[in-house]
Amino acid sequence: MAGEQTPHVPGTAAKGLTADGWFKETSPMWPGMAMTLKVKNVLYQAKSDFQDVCVFESESFGTVLLLDGVIQATERDEFSYQEMIAHLPLCALESPPKKVLVVGGGDGGVLRELARYPSIEQIHMAEIDKMVPETAKKFLPKMAVGFSDPRVQLHICDGIKFVQDATEGEYDAIIVDSSDPVGPAEVLFEKPFFEALHRAVRPGGIVCTQAESLWLHLDIIKSLANMCSQVFVGGSVSYAYTTIPTYPSGQIGMMLCAKAVPGSSAPLDPRTPKQPVPSSAASIEVGNLRYYSHEVHTAAFALPQFAKEALSSSLTYQ
Amino acid sequence: MAGEQTPHVPGTAAKGLTADGWFKETSPMWPGMAMTLKVKNVLYQAKSDFQDVCVFESESFGTVLLLDGVIQATERDEFSYQEMIAHLPLCALESPPKKVLVVGGGDGGVLRELARYPSIEQIHMAEIDKMVPETAKKFLPKMAVGFSDPRVQLHICDGIKFVQDATEGEYDAIIVDSSDPVGPAEVLFEKPFFEALHRAVRPGGIVCTQAESLWLHLDIIKSLANMCSQVFVGGSVSYAYTTIPTYPSGQIGMMLCAKAVPGSSAPLDPRTPKQPVPSSAASIEVGNLRYYSHEVHTAAFALPQFAKEALSSSLTYQ
Repeated sequence: MAGEQTPHVPGTAAKGLTADGWFKETSPMWPGMAMTLKVKNVLYQAKSDFQDVCVFESESFGTVLLLDGVIQATERDEFSYQEMIAHLPLCALESPPKKVLVVGGGDGGVLRELARYPSIEQIHMAEIDKMVPETAKKFLPKMAVGFSDPRVQLHICDGIKFVQDATEGEYDAIIVDSSDPVGPAEVLFEKPFFEALHRAVRPGGIVCTQAESLWLHLDIIKSLANMCSQVFVGGSVSYAYTTIPTYPSGQIGMMLCAKAVPGSSAPLDPRTPKQPVPSSAASIEVGNLRYYSHEVHTAAFALPQFAKEALSSSLTYQ
Repeated sequence: MAGEQTPHVPGTAAKGLTADGWFKETSPMWPGMAMTLKVKNVLYQAKSDFQDVCVFESESFGTVLLLDGVIQATERDEFSYQEMIAHLPLCALESPPKKVLVVGGGDGGVLRELARYPSIEQIHMAEIDKMVPETAKKFLPKMAVGFSDPRVQLHICDGIKFVQDATEGEYDAIIVDSSDPVGPAEVLFEKPFFEALHRAVRPGGIVCTQAESLWLHLDIIKSLANMCSQVFVGGSVSYAYTTIPTYPSGQIGMMLCAKAVPGSSAPLDPRTPKQPVPSSAASIEVGNLRYYSHEVHTAAFALPQFAKEALSSSLTYQ
C-alpha cells in the first residue's frame, strides 16, 4: 500500500461529490442505497499513501470527513459513535482502566472520549495514515482535541504490526476504530489481527472493534463473531450498536471481546456497566456526554429479533 | 383537501424519481440530507384525492411505497416500524386488549401485527385515502394481509372525525400510524386530535402515535410531548424509538400516552411489558416476529443523553 503522497489535482472531484452540489455515498458494502448530503463548500481534497481524503462543509451536518468517498465523521452526529465505541468497553471493565490502545481512530474523537478517565495513565494510538490526524487537526478541532491529552502517544504505523509487537497483556482495553473492510482496513477484520489483539490485552480486559450494521452486514457480523469466539476462548463475545444518521442504515455496531481470566468461573459480561459514567477531563475541553449513559449502555446490547436469532450461536451474551 | 382523483399522466415522474434511475427522498422536514434508493422498476404512479401515490421495485429493499415522494414502507425493513408501533402499546397494557383503533396505517402492516392478539375482538381502522389500502393490496400483499383479519372494519374517512365520534373510553389502545406533519397528516399532530384520542381511549388504555426522529425533530417531539402532557393529565407520556434504515436518519419514534385511572396512584409505565410476546395469528399468515421482543421493548425507551436532557421536563417516564 506504500506510495508517494499525491497532491490533489484541482478540478478533480473527490469520490461521491456530484455535479448538482451533493455528496452521494455509494459502496459495494451497501448496494442499491446511498445517503446523500448537500455540500456547501469543499474544504480539502488530497490523496494520501493509503486513501482519498476529503473534507467538506455540509448544509446541515457541519464539517464532514470522507475517506475513499465514505463518511467517517460529521460534526453533528460523530459523538454517538465516538462515545459508544469508547465507553461501552471502558465502563464494562471490572477495574478502572490504566493503559488503552486505539488502532485507527486518526480523527481523534475516541481520544477525546478516553480523556474523560482520570485513571488512565497511557493512551497509545496506532494510525496508519498520518494525513488523517493532520486533516482532523485542521478541519475538525472538536474531535482532534483528543490529541492534546498529554497521556496520548501517537504512532503512525501499521496497526497490526504495532499490536503484534506489544507486550503480552499490556492493555486494559483496545479499541479498533477502523473504516470498512475494503481498502486499508480489510486486514483489521481478519483472524491474525484478532489473535494479536487477544495477546496484547490483559486477562479480564476488553477489545472493542467497529463491526458494521446489523441491517446491512449480518453475514459479516456472524463470521466476525464466530472468529472472535475461536480467538477469545473462555472469554466472552458480545455485540452492541448505536444510532448515527450519517452511517449507512443509520446505525453501526461494535464487537466486544473480553479475555478470559484463568480460574474465573464466568467471563466478563459487558452488558452491565461497572465503571461510573465518565464526565469532564482534567487537561482538555471535552464537553458533556451527548449520547452515552448507563441505561443506553445496557440497551445497546438488546438486538432486534432477526439479529438475535442469526447471532444466537455466535455470541456469549445477548 | 377533497378533490377529484386524477389519473397519473404517463411520462410524468413521481416526486423524487430522478433521471439516473434512483429515488431521492428530499423534504423540508430533513433539509440538506436525502436517502436514495436505486430503482429497478416503477410499478405504479397515481394521484389520489389527498396525495401522490407511487410504488417501485428497488434494487435492494424490495417493493417500496411512496406517498408524496416520502418512503412509507419497504419490503425489507417495514417490519421494524410495524411491530414496534403495534406491540409497544399493546404489550404495555395491564390487561389483554379487546378493541383497538388504528388511525391511518392504510398499508395494512399494523393490522397484520394486531392479528397476533387472540384477545382482540374488534379492530377499527380510519384511513382517509382509499387508494392506500387498494395499492397495498395490489403491490404489498405481505403487509396488506392484515386486512384479511375478520375482526378488521376499514372505514375510509377523516380520522379526526372518526375519533371524535367514538364512544368515550371505547378503545383499549389507539395507534396513530400517520405520515409526517406536512400534507394530510398535519392535523394528526395537533391538540384537538389528541383531546379526541384521550376521550376515546379507556382509563388505563394507551395511545401510541408516530413521532418522528430524535436526531432530526427534537423540537417537534418536545412540543408534542408537552401538548400530550397537557391532554393526558394524571396519565403518562413516554417516548420510544426503533431503527429502520429507510426512514430519515435511520430511526423513528413513537409517543406513548397512557390515560389516567381514577383513584390509581401511579400512571401506567409503558417501559415494562405486561402482556406476553405475541406470536402467530389464528386466521391469517403473519410470520414470526422479526424485530420485537420484551428486551427490545424496554431498551427502546433508553434515550440518548442529548434527547433525554431535552425531553426530561416533558416526559413522565424515560
